[in-house]
Amino acid sequence: MSTLVQEKVSQAQAILEEHNIDNWLVFVRETTEIPDPILPLVFGSDLVWAAALLLDRRGRHTALVGSGDAHLAQSVGVFETVVGYDQSLRPHLLQTLHRLSPRSIAVNFSKYNNIADGLTHGMYLFLTEDLLGNTPWEERMVSADDMVTKLRGRKSPEELRRIRAAVAATEDLLNRLTGRLRVGMTEREIFGWLKGEMARLGLGDAWSPDYNPGISAGPHSPRGHAGPSDIAIEPGHVLRLDFGVKVDGYCADLQRCWYFLRPGEDAPPSEVQHAFRAVLAAVDRSAAALRPGVEGWQVDKVARDTLAEYGYPEYMHALGHQVGRMAHDGGASLGPRWPRYGDRPYVKIEKDGVFTIEPGTVSPAGTVQLEENVVVTADGCEFLSTQQRELILVRG
Amino acid sequence: MSTLVQEKVSQAQAILEEHNIDNWLVFVRETTEIPDPILPLVFGSDLVWAAALLLDRRGRHTALVGSGDAHLAQSVGVFETVVGYDQSLRPHLLQTLHRLSPRSIAVNFSKYNNIADGLTHGMYLFLTEDLLGNTPWEERMVSADDMVTKLRGRKSPEELRRIRAAVAATEDLLNRLTGRLRVGMTEREIFGWLKGEMARLGLGDAWSPDYNPGISAGPHSPRGHAGPSDIAIEPGHVLRLDFGVKVDGYCADLQRCWYFLRPGEDAPPSEVQHAFRAVLAAVDRSAAALRPGVEGWQVDKVARDTLAEYGYPEYMHALGHQVGRMAHDGGASLGPRWPRYGDRPYVKIEKDGVFTIEPGTVSPAGTVQLEENVVVTADGCEFLSTQQRELILVRG
Repeated sequence: MSTLVQEKVSQAQAILEEHNIDNWLVFVRETTEIPDPILPLVFGSDLVWAAALLLDRRGRHTALVGSGDAHLAQSVGVFETVVGYDQSLRPHLLQTLHRLSPRSIAVNFSKYNNIADGLTHGMYLFLTEDLLGNTPWEERMVSADDMVTKLRGRKSPEELRRIRAAVAATEDLLNRLTGRLRVGMTEREIFGWLKGEMARLGLGDAWSPDYNPGISAGPHSPRGHAGPSDIAIEPGHVLRLDFGVKVDGYCADLQRCWYFLRPGEDAPPSEVQHAFRAVLAAVDRSAAALRPGVEGWQVDKVARDTLAEYGYPEYMHALGHQVGRMAHDGGASLGPRWPRYGDRPYVKIEKDGVFTIEPGTVSPAGTVQLEENVVVTADGCEFLSTQQRELILVRG
Repeated sequence: MSTLVQEKVSQAQAILEEHNIDNWLVFVRETTEIPDPILPLVFGSDLVWAAALLLDRRGRHTALVGSGDAHLAQSVGVFETVVGYDQSLRPHLLQTLHRLSPRSIAVNFSKYNNIADGLTHGMYLFLTEDLLGNTPWEERMVSADDMVTKLRGRKSPEELRRIRAAVAATEDLLNRLTGRLRVGMTEREIFGWLKGEMARLGLGDAWSPDYNPGISAGPHSPRGHAGPSDIAIEPGHVLRLDFGVKVDGYCADLQRCWYFLRPGEDAPPSEVQHAFRAVLAAVDRSAAALRPGVEGWQVDKVARDTLAEYGYPEYMHALGHQVGRMAHDGGASLGPRWPRYGDRPYVKIEKDGVFTIEPGTVSPAGTVQLEENVVVTADGCEFLSTQQRELILVRG
């Protein structure tokens, strides 16, 4: 029995009700090769032979799986009916649909929402031509697009527990790093130390390991998806890290900033302090604006306007994204109304969504950017991370 | 520069020529979420924004990727042209197709061949409706099904090096296990020791970690995809392990058998010896039959007939499957002509294919099954594993 899967299937049933959809069909095969992003939420293990998982609005959840996977499907503990087939899935699927009689069947495909696009084109053809061709069910299929977004977005208690653990582990490593930082260390050395500690502690990467942590030391660090450089920290540099670990399949995604004092300095130069205060104010004010019912672009605008008020240009990215199984968990975005973000900035914020808040700007000493992780509550949001409210000063 | 990707893209170009196809389009996005199984072969890293990788029969390979991924695409070292886009992929894709002028464009979808089914249905709609709708290119798309099978099946020198390393690491663990085996150990204890050593050595699982190793101790071990049981080894038991580790993304998949002597015994009972000899003969004779140009079912039949000759029923699975990035690497199968295996037993065997050979039967002391890994040579096959030719005897 998986607590997480039970929580998520129970959410899925509520979402079916909200959308007035009778069945949700997750249709997969050999998922170690091509996973449907929804499978860890509604099943929790890999499946080998072609499998049809039918989530039912009235709770008659049914798993039609290869006979070798039947024991596993039983053990999930959410399926009222489990059939292990030997020869062909077709008769079992038709019989099940006859029994459940859905007026509508949601399946996982989406042109623009990658997390809702777990059905491959070959499997779509297999389903519509071989299994449901010339049956009434074929015409009742609809996209599960918005349903996946909701299911993935609304973090269950177990999901929140895992995200909190990932945030704590990430913060712990960053705090320990602070004690080791010194002028002369290269980006590559910092990268290597964090990677070594992650391996020692058995912690996974929240995104592509080549870019985790992302590091910029001083004003000349290369930008974009590049690994760490051989640039060494100098006095007067801002060091910024973008770092997150994964715990039990769930991610954190934090950014922190350090300032390396020059000889004789007791505090960062005023331009650096000004940049930090602007970014901190953008975090504070946008977090205060984040609550159920608002649209992401409205929250982004608060941060964007704050930086403008402090005299800085707008950042060329979104204020924040959802965090969960992936660091970029898809769905509603705290992004500006730019074509690049599609309709995601317009999706209404829901309770139990977990977001990054990550405004940033550039100072003469290097990039100043903060990234916090928050969870949306009934009337606002709660910080999951221990907010960075001052530049961390490093001497020598 | 990736040796592996260079080798595989060079193979892909030869396969385009063989199939008289001009371009091979790999169309992906956010591949940490939904990977195309071909991406590690022709790119070697994950891609974030929607990306079109065009492999060209005449070598003008082109990568159209999000601007954040452009540096990465350059570094692969196989793309003559790399474009990093900011706003929309469409104009770049149309311009590239105009330049390459393909009469045919293969894309990765397949109803029955999961390794060739990396294009999701939403991405298929995005490609055919938004990007190539109302253009001449839309009608020139064909399935890359057989091409993926060939590309994945023909192991390059670097792939063979990695598979050999995985076989060696798997054998090393099995040899060390032999020294620790004793009567009274449970399946769970054996499982735990191997898992601990894998973690210590940083070795990955060749298949789902819950079933690696698969263990059957004696005649009463439960069958199917179940984890290890609490059954303890008794004198007179055959212990069989199905085990494989992954090294640098490539797998081994071996089965080995031990016999636990009863007090006073110097050798296994004759029924057990007979079963082992039958299985060994099935391995030897089918390996002798495996060479380029034969069809898998012919090789399977040799093993099946051998077991019948020794008086055993036929095994209810295929003699062997390909091994590579996955333990079950897809494509040509050494399987019987049963509907369940589709057309895979009919695919002609090619040089540089890597296969398991895994006939088995049941003795009164437990399952007796051997699994070796072999690579197809110009005129036969070579064992990658050190063949087990005798039951390993354990005393006490």
